[in-house]
Amino acid sequence: MAEQEKEATLPSKENFSEWYNGMLQIAEIMDVRYPVKGSYVWYPFGFSIRRNVYDIIRGLLDKDHQETLFPLLIPENEFMKEAEHIKGFEEEVYWVLNGGTTPLDVKLALRPTSETAIYPMYRLWVRSHADLPLKLYQIVNTFRYETKHTRPLIRLREITSFKEAHTVHATWDEAASQVEEAIRLYIEFYKRLAIPVLPSKRPSWDKFPGADYTIAVDSLMPDGKTLQVGTAHHLGDNFAKTFDIKYEDVDGEQVYAHQTCYGVSERCIATLLSTHGDDKGLVLPPEVAPTQVVIIPIIFKEPEAVLNACNDVKAELEAAGVRVTIDDSDKRPGSKYYKWEMKGVPLRIEIGPRDLKNEAAMLARRDTGEKEQVPLASIKDEVLSRFKIIQTSLLEKATSELNERIFDCSTVDDVKEKVQDGIALVPWCGEEKCGLDLDEQVGAGILGIPTDMDEDGTYKCPICSKETRTRVYVARTY
Amino acid sequence: MAEQEKEATLPSKENFSEWYNGMLQIAEIMDVRYPVKGSYVWYPFGFSIRRNVYDIIRGLLDKDHQETLFPLLIPENEFMKEAEHIKGFEEEVYWVLNGGTTPLDVKLALRPTSETAIYPMYRLWVRSHADLPLKLYQIVNTFRYETKHTRPLIRLREITSFKEAHTVHATWDEAASQVEEAIRLYIEFYKRLAIPVLPSKRPSWDKFPGADYTIAVDSLMPDGKTLQVGTAHHLGDNFAKTFDIKYEDVDGEQVYAHQTCYGVSERCIATLLSTHGDDKGLVLPPEVAPTQVVIIPIIFKEPEAVLNACNDVKAELEAAGVRVTIDDSDKRPGSKYYKWEMKGVPLRIEIGPRDLKNEAAMLARRDTGEKEQVPLASIKDEVLSRFKIIQTSLLEKATSELNERIFDCSTVDDVKEKVQDGIALVPWCGEEKCGLDLDEQVGAGILGIPTDMDEDGTYKCPICSKETRTRVYVARTY
Ligand SMILES: [Zn+2]
Ligand SMILES: [Zn+2]
Repeated sequence: MAEQEKEATLPSKENFSEWYNGMLQIAEIMDVRYPVKGSYVWYPFGFSIRRNVYDIIRGLLDKDHQETLFPLLIPENEFMKEAEHIKGFEEEVYWVLNGGTTPLDVKLALRPTSETAIYPMYRLWVRSHADLPLKLYQIVNTFRYETKHTRPLIRLREITSFKEAHTVHATWDEAASQVEEAIRLYIEFYKRLAIPVLPSKRPSWDKFPGADYTIAVDSLMPDGKTLQVGTAHHLGDNFAKTFDIKYEDVDGEQVYAHQTCYGVSERCIATLLSTHGDDKGLVLPPEVAPTQVVIIPIIFKEPEAVLNACNDVKAELEAAGVRVTIDDSDKRPGSKYYKWEMKGVPLRIEIGPRDLKNEAAMLARRDTGEKEQVPLASIKDEVLSRFKIIQTSLLEKATSELNERIFDCSTVDDVKEKVQDGIALVPWCGEEKCGLDLDEQVGAGILGIPTDMDEDGTYKCPICSKETRTRVYVARTY
Repeated sequence: MAEQEKEATLPSKENFSEWYNGMLQIAEIMDVRYPVKGSYVWYPFGFSIRRNVYDIIRGLLDKDHQETLFPLLIPENEFMKEAEHIKGFEEEVYWVLNGGTTPLDVKLALRPTSETAIYPMYRLWVRSHADLPLKLYQIVNTFRYETKHTRPLIRLREITSFKEAHTVHATWDEAASQVEEAIRLYIEFYKRLAIPVLPSKRPSWDKFPGADYTIAVDSLMPDGKTLQVGTAHHLGDNFAKTFDIKYEDVDGEQVYAHQTCYGVSERCIATLLSTHGDDKGLVLPPEVAPTQVVIIPIIFKEPEAVLNACNDVKAELEAAGVRVTIDDSDKRPGSKYYKWEMKGVPLRIEIGPRDLKNEAAMLARRDTGEKEQVPLASIKDEVLSRFKIIQTSLLEKATSELNERIFDCSTVDDVKEKVQDGIALVPWCGEEKCGLDLDEQVGAGILGIPTDMDEDGTYKCPICSKETRTRVYVARTY
């Protein structure tokens, strides 16, 4: 499939939006030409990144969650039970009305999220305190009839890869701890993708419909906008009351359970590709790169000796669990470099006759472009140690880029200016009116109150001038 | 979740239908209480079997296919392009008509299968002979508005786990080879599940709508009915003409491509559980068992020494990649046996003070019930070698049960009688009229012409008495 795209030109990352669209197509992540708005096709290469990324999140969750799978179709009566929840979703839900040529008796919603599919079953499954905590998750497609501009991996009508966890606990406090645990888990997940994220508690007007509160993690995109890449909601006993989820406590009393839910979508892939990529294409952390090492034989004489050496290196690396490809195609080296750089392969090994004479190989890092000659005898260790270095280096680079773009602001004008470049940290008195005023005046949104920051200063709300010890992140958002 | 189901009674497998429903609930495979007909919920335990089973099929396909993901929603105009295909599906398709409270401009079908979602993209992706063969697959949820009686894992309105592969080839012959390859692959897949399947070429009136021909594999269920558990379709250039999928051949000519598709659904889990299960519950081949070994400490004195020994064995087995659980709960041993037998755990290890004195452990096989004392010193090898023995033994048992229930038949009465117990092998002249007559007279269906059998006899069609060298499988089917 790559043939027709050969050596297409990727726009500079400075024009982020064009770079993003070009990267998705040229690096073969998503094809946007599917004939339904907001639905996109995963190219096999893109999907292999998705597999590696979702293996990480599965691994993290499997420690104390279980994977499960609930139906896509939700009957109207269940969907309509939770008033606040439905209000948040009613304009966004796709409805199945016909089966074959027959109108259905009961309208069926395509899940926009699965609370109303899962909780009628939790009512049956949760009986006793011994059943708690219950921690399940599923990875599914969900649907939102988005009227805003859609964008692959970011704003979709079919979210193809929604990882949603739903937990049940005995007490409100235990559910609150689980929300914290979920955020820790997401921070760890993004760290594995070499991406720093900012956790913050969403203001009340921006919480999940039906939740007591919401904590979210955001990443910073290259254009200075933030992308919400994970959310965790404390549902209190709100849904438990609606769906009658009770358990018998140690004293034999029937008590409403407390719940949380938390989710991550393929936005994690959007931020992965956008954060690390450059003008040459993708830059992938080794753990998620479908090909971790590409070996390029430099052949003009002794082709057999060179190819043998390449095969030996491949065998040795594969035995160590490394995903390796030899590119022995007829293309010229420059064209091979172009291709594998576009695909974000973390390390390129070049072996030619001169290297063989030195019993060495050239090792080129995708992230920095650094080239170094290394002895063939220790090639495995050289590769494995560089994987760690690359991972650390990508995370450090992304972290310092993020930190450079978080700005302390004290006036509305200051905020207005700084959100053009990144995230403003702004005092806020806590009044909803001031928050909404601020949003409107700066044309950006309050993300929330950082949950990982100990404030010890005193500040002034830029709207009402009241003193406050609280600051919030403000940013333009996707 | 297991608490409320504790020691529920499983109906005898002789009453297969009741056993099946009881098994799904008591062993926690599927919960049938979801409030939409034909949609069921995977219990976490059931889903963990599904994971292991689909890991096998992924592993087999990944050798020369790539995984991908296409949208669920298919616009009406694409869906309606292939006349024969749509005729096969029009009564079964769910239609999304509303987004939010707004009627959609274009009706959207929930995929019943993905030809019409994938092939418009193949038109864009296939350009040159160098792009061929193209072999992609996806594992997705698909939808059929079934009006027949629905049944978990077998006849569903939401098929949650449809593995569908779609390949493109230069020539009709290459596509035909791929269909054979697909059937070989499915036979290998089912062998890993210790299930023998029968491949046969479906009669023309039972082929996939839009295909040149269909080869399917069937398994025999305990009640004597067959279950179609995999199909492979030669699509010729029928869809290529409809969706304009052409490639430039070596001479620079634009030629229509040839295609195949082949699929397996969660019916593979239905036959896995039904074939091996018994009156005590599941019997799982080691490769797909979520827990492969359960260790039961027999404690009345020296609890510490016994528990230490159990932990040592667990550690040793886990180091060898075995999935192990120690059940040190307070339940009595009988209750533990009941639980783990119901879940199909292949091996149970019991360790008590007397065993310790002998430096031994008791090893009990789930499939045969055989118990044997084995030395602790060699426990890892004992376990691993028994896994192989169990796998072989399950396949042999299932194969001989199948072979005993395939009956040579020469008259209609004979067929009528034998299909009550299993599969009839019946001469057929090849005339559609005789085939349909036979179906009607015996109240069962022609599965197809076996593709793995060399016929050298001459037979008589039981309907028209014409001589023929062909015989077909006839069976009652799910
Ligand atoms: Zn204020
Ligand atoms: Zn005949």
